[in-house]
Amino acid sequence: MELMTARGMRDFSPSDMIIRNNVINSLTRVFERYGFSPLETPVIERYDVLSAKFAAGEESDAMKETFKLRDQGERELGLRFDFTVPFARFIGMNPTLNMPFKRYQLGPVFRDGPIKLGRYREFWQCDVDTAGSNSMLADAECILLALDAFKELKIDAFLVINNRKLLQGLLLDSGVPQDKLSSAIIAIDKMDKIGESGVKEELSDRGISSEIIDRILESFSVRGNNKEMLGQVEKTVKSDIGKEGVRELKELLEYVDGPNVVLSLSLARGLSYYTGPVFEGYLRGSQITSSICGGGRYDKMIGMYLGSSKEIAAIGISFGLDVICEAMKLAGAASQETVARVFIIPIGTQKECLKIATQLREAGVNTAVDIIGRGISKNMKYADAMKIPYVIIVGEDELKQKKVKLRDMKSGKEEIITAKQAKKKLSVKES
Amino acid sequence: MELMTARGMRDFSPSDMIIRNNVINSLTRVFERYGFSPLETPVIERYDVLSAKFAAGEESDAMKETFKLRDQGERELGLRFDFTVPFARFIGMNPTLNMPFKRYQLGPVFRDGPIKLGRYREFWQCDVDTAGSNSMLADAECILLALDAFKELKIDAFLVINNRKLLQGLLLDSGVPQDKLSSAIIAIDKMDKIGESGVKEELSDRGISSEIIDRILESFSVRGNNKEMLGQVEKTVKSDIGKEGVRELKELLEYVDGPNVVLSLSLARGLSYYTGPVFEGYLRGSQITSSICGGGRYDKMIGMYLGSSKEIAAIGISFGLDVICEAMKLAGAASQETVARVFIIPIGTQKECLKIATQLREAGVNTAVDIIGRGISKNMKYADAMKIPYVIIVGEDELKQKKVKLRDMKSGKEEIITAKQAKKKLSVKES
Repeated sequence: MELMTARGMRDFSPSDMIIRNNVINSLTRVFERYGFSPLETPVIERYDVLSAKFAAGEESDAMKETFKLRDQGERELGLRFDFTVPFARFIGMNPTLNMPFKRYQLGPVFRDGPIKLGRYREFWQCDVDTAGSNSMLADAECILLALDAFKELKIDAFLVINNRKLLQGLLLDSGVPQDKLSSAIIAIDKMDKIGESGVKEELSDRGISSEIIDRILESFSVRGNNKEMLGQVEKTVKSDIGKEGVRELKELLEYVDGPNVVLSLSLARGLSYYTGPVFEGYLRGSQITSSICGGGRYDKMIGMYLGSSKEIAAIGISFGLDVICEAMKLAGAASQETVARVFIIPIGTQKECLKIATQLREAGVNTAVDIIGRGISKNMKYADAMKIPYVIIVGEDELKQKKVKLRDMKSGKEEIITAKQAKKKLSVKES
Repeated sequence: MELMTARGMRDFSPSDMIIRNNVINSLTRVFERYGFSPLETPVIERYDVLSAKFAAGEESDAMKETFKLRDQGERELGLRFDFTVPFARFIGMNPTLNMPFKRYQLGPVFRDGPIKLGRYREFWQCDVDTAGSNSMLADAECILLALDAFKELKIDAFLVINNRKLLQGLLLDSGVPQDKLSSAIIAIDKMDKIGESGVKEELSDRGISSEIIDRILESFSVRGNNKEMLGQVEKTVKSDIGKEGVRELKELLEYVDGPNVVLSLSLARGLSYYTGPVFEGYLRGSQITSSICGGGRYDKMIGMYLGSSKEIAAIGISFGLDVICEAMKLAGAASQETVARVFIIPIGTQKECLKIATQLREAGVNTAVDIIGRGISKNMKYADAMKIPYVIIVGEDELKQKKVKLRDMKSGKEEIITAKQAKKKLSVKES
C-alpha cells in the first residue's frame, strides 16, 4: 500500500476544517434566512441520469470528466459532477412539489479532469436554486442572498450582473448571425482572462468579421452608474430580445441596486443554458481575482433535461467553498488546531476534573481534558502546540480551596478562581 | 433516461433533511464540546489504501462491497466504506500530529452490498475517534460523550458496556481454546438477535463442546448492578487477560457509572479488531431495537494497518444517523416542509415587502416572500401547504398605516402590528 490520497483528492486537517465549517455554517444560515430548505441527493447517480444533461445541450467536455463505475449488478453509475442535474431529476420525480421549490445543497462533487493549481477532482459546491418562478423577484432574491452572504462572511465583495437576453440583443444588433451567438458568447466570457484584444482574436477565429467585432466592443463601452448605463443602452438597443433584457434588468435593479451591484454588459458566463439575468461575485482589493460565486436564470434547462414540453423556470447561484476559504485565510482568519477553548490538566484529580469538564460543557464551552495521564509540563506543551486559548489546572491545593487555576495562554496570566467563575469567563464568546 | 435514483440510493427531501440536520448539528455540537475537531477526508481513496484494512484482519465480506472505479489515468480507486481507514491513513501520513489526536467526521460512506429494508448503499456515519491514549480516561470520555449526545437529542437511551479482555478471559476460563476465541466471539455477538439457544447452537457448530458452552453461559449469568456484577466476576475470573479486563472496567465505571450505563458480560460487537472496552447504545421503550451507536477500543488496528511495529492506541464511537432520525420521527419530531418561519405576501407592495423581509432576516428569522407575484389566495394556499407557521400580508391599507397584518396559521389569529413588533414576535424561538 502507498500511504497517500488519490490523485486530485485532499484531506482537510482540523485547522482547515475549522475555517471551512465557519464558511459552510455562515452560508447555510444565510440560505435558510431566505427560506431555502435543505435537499440531499446521493453522491452516486445512474449514469444515464447524469449524461442526459449533455443531451440537453451542456458542453461535452464535462461528460468526459464524469467518474464512471458499476455496481455488483453491472448497472452503469456515475458520481455527480454538479447539483443542478440532481435538482432537475428530483423535480422530475416529484411532480406534486409545491412551487416555488427553493432548495440548497452543499457537498462534494466530482470531476475526473486535469489537475492544476487549485483544481481538484473532488470539491465542494454550495448551491441555492429556485424552480417555478419566472418573476424578477426570484432573481432579486438570489442577488440579495449573495450580498447578505458576503456580509455574513465579513468579506468585501461585489456582484457583477448582466442579462443574457440583453447580451444576445447587443450581439444581434452588432450583426452576429443567430447560429454564431453561442460561440460568440463563449469567446466574450473570456474577457476577464484574455482581455479585449484576446476576445477580438477569439471572435475572429470563430468567423466573426472585424466590423462586427468592433460594433460588439463599441456596444459594451457604455459608461456611468448602473441606471445611466441602462438608460443609454435602452436608447440604442434594437432587437426585441435585447429590449426584453433591458426591461428585466430595470426591474431587477429596482429591487437590488446599490454599491455592491455592478452592471457589466460583457458579462457572459460560460454555460450555454442561461436565459436571463447572470451574475458573478468578486472580491475587492484581494489578490484573488477569480469569482467567488456565480449564477443566473436557466428557464429551459430543466424542461429539456426532463424531455418535457413544459418549461420549468429556474434560477440559482453557486458559491465556491475553496476560493472563499482561501479569501478568509488571506484576510487573516485565525488558525486553530482544535475547537477546544480550554484544556483541563488534573494533578491527581482526574475524577474532579471530569466533573468540572461536565459543568463547562453544559455551559457550551468546548472543553478538552488530559486523557493520557501525562505530567503537567507535557500537558502544557500540548495545550501550547494545539493553540488552546485557556488551561485549567487542578492540583491538591486548588481542590482543598474548591478552586481552579485558570491560565490565559496568550498573556500567561493566571488566576485562582472557582469553577463557576471559570465557567462564566469561558462561556463569554470573543468576537 | 430512466428518471430515478440508482439502486440503494436515496434523496432526502427538505422535510427529511430538516430532521437530519437537527441530528447532525446536535451531534456536532456535542463532539466539539468534548474537544473533538473536524477532519474531512475524500470520498474517493486509492483502492490499495482501502483494501489494506482487510489485510489487517478485517472481515473479507466487506471487501467485496467496496465500490471500485478508475480515473482517466487508469488508477485503481474505491469509495470509502467507513471513516476508520481514512483516519488511520491520515495518522500515518501525518507523523508529527500532536497526541492525543481527537477528530470527528460525518458524511456518506458506500457499500455495494445487498439491499434490505433500512439498508442502503450510501449512508451516513457520524464518528468520533481518539488516537494516542491507552488510558481509560479516553474510553470514559467517549462514553460520557455518548450519554451527552442522548441528552442533546432528547432521546431516552442507554449504553451497554463490556470489555473484550474480560470476555476473552471468561471464554478461556470456560475452556475455549485460544484459536477458537474469535470464532466464539462472533457467535456470542448474535445473542440479541438469536437468543441464548441460538448462540448455543452457533457455538456448537463452531466446534465448541456442550460442557464449555454451559460454562460460558454460566459465566455470563452474574446478576446485580454494575458494581455487584463486577465484584462477583472479580472473584471468579482466573486468566490474566480477564483480570486485566476487570481492572479496566472498574476504573472506567469510576468515571462513568450511572443509570444509563449497563454492564453486560456477553456484549461482544462483531468487528474483530476491538481490544478493550466496547459499548453499544440502545433506545428505551422504543419499537426500534437495533443499536443507535457503538464503539470501543482498538489498540492494534492502526499500527497493523500502517504495517508499523508501533502500536497506536485508539478508541472511537460511531452514531447511526438513519436509526437516530427514525427514532426522532417516532418520538414525534415535527414534520416541516420548509425552514421558513414566515411567508410575506405583498399586495402591490413588492418593494416594501423586500425591505420588511430584510429586517426580519437581519433579526435571524427565516423568511420567504412571494417571488411569483401570485394573488393572495394562491399564496395563502402555498403557505398552508408548506406548513409555514406565520404569514405577513402587506396591502395598500397596511402600508398607509405603516403596519403589517400578521397571521398565525395554526390559530388563524390575525393582528395589525408594526414590522418591528412582528420582528420581535417572530424572532422568539419556540421550543
